[in-house]
Amino acid sequence: MSRTVGFMPEIHSARRERAQQKIAALDADGALITSLPNVRYLTGLVSSNAALLLPADGPGVLATDSRYEEAARHDCPDLEVVSERFLEPSLIGLAVTRGLRAVAFEAQEMTVERYQELLALGRAPALVPLGRLVEELRMVKDDAEIGLLARACAITGEALSAALPGIAAGRTEREFAILLERAMIDSGADALAFDSIVASGPNGAVPHHLPGDRPFASGDLITIDCGAACGGYHADMTRTVALGEPAAWQRDIYDLVAAAQRAGVNAARAGAEVSEVDAAARGLIAAAGHGDHFRHGLGHGVGLEVHEAPTIGYGRTGKLQDRVPVTVEPGIYLPGRGGVRIEDTLVVRANAEAGAAGTPQMLTTTTRELLVL
Amino acid sequence: MSRTVGFMPEIHSARRERAQQKIAALDADGALITSLPNVRYLTGLVSSNAALLLPADGPGVLATDSRYEEAARHDCPDLEVVSERFLEPSLIGLAVTRGLRAVAFEAQEMTVERYQELLALGRAPALVPLGRLVEELRMVKDDAEIGLLARACAITGEALSAALPGIAAGRTEREFAILLERAMIDSGADALAFDSIVASGPNGAVPHHLPGDRPFASGDLITIDCGAACGGYHADMTRTVALGEPAAWQRDIYDLVAAAQRAGVNAARAGAEVSEVDAAARGLIAAAGHGDHFRHGLGHGVGLEVHEAPTIGYGRTGKLQDRVPVTVEPGIYLPGRGGVRIEDTLVVRANAEAGAAGTPQMLTTTTRELLVL
Repeated sequence: MSRTVGFMPEIHSARRERAQQKIAALDADGALITSLPNVRYLTGLVSSNAALLLPADGPGVLATDSRYEEAARHDCPDLEVVSERFLEPSLIGLAVTRGLRAVAFEAQEMTVERYQELLALGRAPALVPLGRLVEELRMVKDDAEIGLLARACAITGEALSAALPGIAAGRTEREFAILLERAMIDSGADALAFDSIVASGPNGAVPHHLPGDRPFASGDLITIDCGAACGGYHADMTRTVALGEPAAWQRDIYDLVAAAQRAGVNAARAGAEVSEVDAAARGLIAAAGHGDHFRHGLGHGVGLEVHEAPTIGYGRTGKLQDRVPVTVEPGIYLPGRGGVRIEDTLVVRANAEAGAAGTPQMLTTTTRELLVL
Repeated sequence: MSRTVGFMPEIHSARRERAQQKIAALDADGALITSLPNVRYLTGLVSSNAALLLPADGPGVLATDSRYEEAARHDCPDLEVVSERFLEPSLIGLAVTRGLRAVAFEAQEMTVERYQELLALGRAPALVPLGRLVEELRMVKDDAEIGLLARACAITGEALSAALPGIAAGRTEREFAILLERAMIDSGADALAFDSIVASGPNGAVPHHLPGDRPFASGDLITIDCGAACGGYHADMTRTVALGEPAAWQRDIYDLVAAAQRAGVNAARAGAEVSEVDAAARGLIAAAGHGDHFRHGLGHGVGLEVHEAPTIGYGRTGKLQDRVPVTVEPGIYLPGRGGVRIEDTLVVRANAEAGAAGTPQMLTTTTRELLVL
């Protein structure tokens, strides 16, 4: 799988058409897309500097700089491509020339500084909020996207299996992280989805601990949170393993997190409220008296970003839908002692794709039994 | 070198004091720092979700979420740490409680959406622009920072040397990129500074080409742009090599880029205007009739971000200073044929650190002669 996946102009033009229908419904004449994952989603262009002017009707204009101009012309043959130094002012200038009077923009992405620059152009169209319209389109994945996620998840599992024999007393978190990350590249990852977390012993109480110089020791629980990226799509998986026979308290919290994770996975069905999915897992942990030791959300969407819509958390609203890939990742973190987290990436399904009707399609499949090394 | 470099509270508190002096000079009572590299620079905390309220006088308040709370308390013992779900509104609320009437914010980082949320709080202090005050402090590096950059650059050179024998006809860009990235991790990189560029044959005309499935062929020029990261600091180096004896046009553009790069490096002295440094290199390329084939800037600062202040380009203003690490990276790109880029990371010096007085300290040192493989 090449990193330059993206030469599928018909997929991207169909995505733009869906976006255009929604833009027209907003009473805007067009939209200025500046979120890079959104630009990639709608055009296929992989760039650190690009923006798209998408009129409600007619072809879009993709602006980038000279570094990406040739790639844009090649990958996006059905878009007008302009190479500019200041992307947004140029596109807003074009919008004026083309008679667009109201342009929707991504207030969740555009900085105050850039916005003020656009207002200062003087001849700018009305700038109205687009909201998370493209992010919402991105939530529901097509077969090609689910295929890339599945591949990224398979590589992640393969790499973790290859690396696990490298866990031994005396080896440091960082040494193991390097072993694991090499295994991901060897297994075919285009890139790492994010910096791996390897948290051993008391460090396991820090949900996002970065691998450091602590050597593993017998009696440790070790939390490993890692993922491969393929064609721009991100896997996300966590397993917690024991080095040496675990103490009773370690097995207790492991079993509790595992049960909570199963409950969360089972609740992740099309039509479920995200707050109910969160509650299905959190309730078990809270009932066992560990509510204060699990303070992050239960999960999140994955795709072109490793964290994207929807968020599965307490106090969040919205329903899961068919073809939405999410993580389910409860944890228990005991300050000064250690922690456990178990996380899978899975796809919410309305119909049976991998088992009983309505159960999710698991993309990460490494065993969830406590491995004692 | 651990990824968790950052437990140097006295370095970070000294940085905060320098920032506080500048905030007081702005007529603001404090600043809300939301740029993550700026938060890391001022606190040492490595987090994907953190913000700092820094009053002009007195200790700061670091807000993060529960995932990073323990790390923040450990790494930032001289800061008040709060764990919050909505960082900026919480810090603005604290600012009100503590009587701050004007708070400077980072308009280049804060989104329009977040800004409108803060204004909607009703009881917000006046929000005034901070500008790039922290970015300017970050430009001039201390010895520890230069040490991390030097280490990242040494690893980059070591890895490229280890990987170069892997260039052979039939091997793809992507296969070589994986080889190179593995070599960087093997050589001690904490992470890659950015996705490597490997652009062979005609792909060399695309300055930011991502490695794809094109197999190397005899007669190719191959441009390799890569870097390691150490302790959060980023190396950036490009070399172009020839597979098989190069044609006359290939040698011609190589020699021209090499001469331009030397001229740019020699011009990168403390006190030089960035536009003059750019012109020193660009002038040679333009004089040879290739002005249209070199359309990106000459270089950029490197540090906690791989692209940071200053930008060395035509039409840019500002002077280079002692202890400012930058890249110098001219190129020539011939559409459909190929290209050459040569890039070093170096430190601008007022005094001799690595040679004659005023010449820069080269951090990347791989030969700039055309390697014929």
